[in-house]
Amino acid sequence: MSNAPLVLDAATVSRYLPHIDVLQEMRQLFVELGRAQAVQPAQTLTLFPDERGDFITYLGAAAGAGVFGAKLSPYLVQDGPPIITAWTVLMSMETGQPLMLCDAGQLTTERTAATTALAVDHLAKQDATTLAIIGTGAVAQAHWRQARALRQWEKVVVYSPHLSQSGGVQQIWRDLCPQVTFASSAEDAAEGADVVMLCTSSGTPVVDAAVIGTGTLVTSISTNVARAHEIDPAFLSAADVYCDYRQTTPTTAGEMQIAAQEHGWSVDRVQGDLPGLAIAQCPTPSGTRPIFFRSIGLGLEDIAVAHALFRAASA
Amino acid sequence: MSNAPLVLDAATVSRYLPHIDVLQEMRQLFVELGRAQAVQPAQTLTLFPDERGDFITYLGAAAGAGVFGAKLSPYLVQDGPPIITAWTVLMSMETGQPLMLCDAGQLTTERTAATTALAVDHLAKQDATTLAIIGTGAVAQAHWRQARALRQWEKVVVYSPHLSQSGGVQQIWRDLCPQVTFASSAEDAAEGADVVMLCTSSGTPVVDAAVIGTGTLVTSISTNVARAHEIDPAFLSAADVYCDYRQTTPTTAGEMQIAAQEHGWSVDRVQGDLPGLAIAQCPTPSGTRPIFFRSIGLGLEDIAVAHALFRAASA
Repeated sequence: MSNAPLVLDAATVSRYLPHIDVLQEMRQLFVELGRAQAVQPAQTLTLFPDERGDFITYLGAAAGAGVFGAKLSPYLVQDGPPIITAWTVLMSMETGQPLMLCDAGQLTTERTAATTALAVDHLAKQDATTLAIIGTGAVAQAHWRQARALRQWEKVVVYSPHLSQSGGVQQIWRDLCPQVTFASSAEDAAEGADVVMLCTSSGTPVVDAAVIGTGTLVTSISTNVARAHEIDPAFLSAADVYCDYRQTTPTTAGEMQIAAQEHGWSVDRVQGDLPGLAIAQCPTPSGTRPIFFRSIGLGLEDIAVAHALFRAASA
Repeated sequence: MSNAPLVLDAATVSRYLPHIDVLQEMRQLFVELGRAQAVQPAQTLTLFPDERGDFITYLGAAAGAGVFGAKLSPYLVQDGPPIITAWTVLMSMETGQPLMLCDAGQLTTERTAATTALAVDHLAKQDATTLAIIGTGAVAQAHWRQARALRQWEKVVVYSPHLSQSGGVQQIWRDLCPQVTFASSAEDAAEGADVVMLCTSSGTPVVDAAVIGTGTLVTSISTNVARAHEIDPAFLSAADVYCDYRQTTPTTAGEMQIAAQEHGWSVDRVQGDLPGLAIAQCPTPSGTRPIFFRSIGLGLEDIAVAHALFRAASA
């Protein structure tokens, strides 16, 4: 067929990914969203019959780039561990034809990390030098790759329970980050840090919020555990709170739901989101409290990173 | 890549379509939906910025067949006529991997017609012999193909405003349907018919409901005009009303919205839907009134017909 869409599997995506500036893609995307040149519908969860799992559909339309599409991510219950995949179909707003169908597993990891990094760039102190990373897996590694150039990081302290179980994990991190040191607890890592990136798939707190100081930025990501939260929901009342997208995140993020239900916190207390920060239309941190940034991930991020992959693969 | 998904454009789909029994696929699907073995989420409409159009996402999961997926159908505003396309991505519930990306334009036409035909099979008199078809385009032709074997049609009367404008249209219909005759108005076609299939893209009534007799079945389909209706909404109060899917159609179909708002009609008056008819869990027509069947189209139909195409193309 003429103009056949590209079909890229995980191995092919791996080859192109190092050539994509995902952080720059996220930066442009949130400016577009701030200017209402991009559209973010709510994600939809569809349960399979007989408790066989579910699939989430992430949609987005980026008019500036002239693309739209959907990421489908199923969670398939098996006898063994569940199968979780993600595939994105990218369509042209000019022709209505598909441009690409691609494995979106690694793209999701990278756009999640780049979204956190964008928040670090907007919200962390300009003179931040100490970075704590809680978690050591692929998502944590991507967070470091995306955030490494944003400040003059003199000290990078990493913690996860896996560190003590495997020497291989430490070696991976020494290769990735020459200045890395390893902590014996999450609290040891976070105490005194300018930025603490929580990069886990935990559904319950991974660090004691009591060690988070004034002006320290804590970032947190999403997992598919119901009401998942990486930090004590009570922490939100003591912090300047930001999120990736004000229209969708506060009603979905576990610690925001719980803080609102049990700790007298309110969604009105969200000071800003990435579109607002991108176009300088929301307050910057007060400097008198810790700062908390929570992302749940947007379909638009999937579309934007898929479009960057498409450009790289078509070049 | 191994097990690469099939990518089928419109020309390739055309070649396989005659080998697919779309009516049988719809029949099985609505049994599955009646038995809660298939899941139909609501469709989502996403507006593009700056009035550049929109796209509708149709989702579905058919556990019996072990597939799920999405159809994306954009409406793209251009200087000339709008571009409307539809593409379906079909995924495996076993592996989480994509099976196929296919042009869904013709599939949509055919599954729409087969859904109407399924309603005709459930709701029309067993001894029906006279069929009126309002509309003569591709959708109307597909309706005839799907419904032709369901009853002993002795008389098929066709009307559209295009008939008088082009001799070519009449020839197409003579080739399709040896017993066809042509009427000079929709009312002439519909009067005395056992079944009247409305197969137009009109947003306003195409036939005067006064000519519809007791026991006559009128079927009606969807277009993307807001509050579109092919028949006077007041007709619903005088008819036994059925639809494709009770959970979604009554709040979306134009004549049902208007009948509820302006004519004292109520959604409770819907006697049944295709899942209910498929498993014999809703009342059959009373025989004392006309019968009205309205479809808006389900993502599950798109998934089921795409799965049939995938099987045909993989064979």
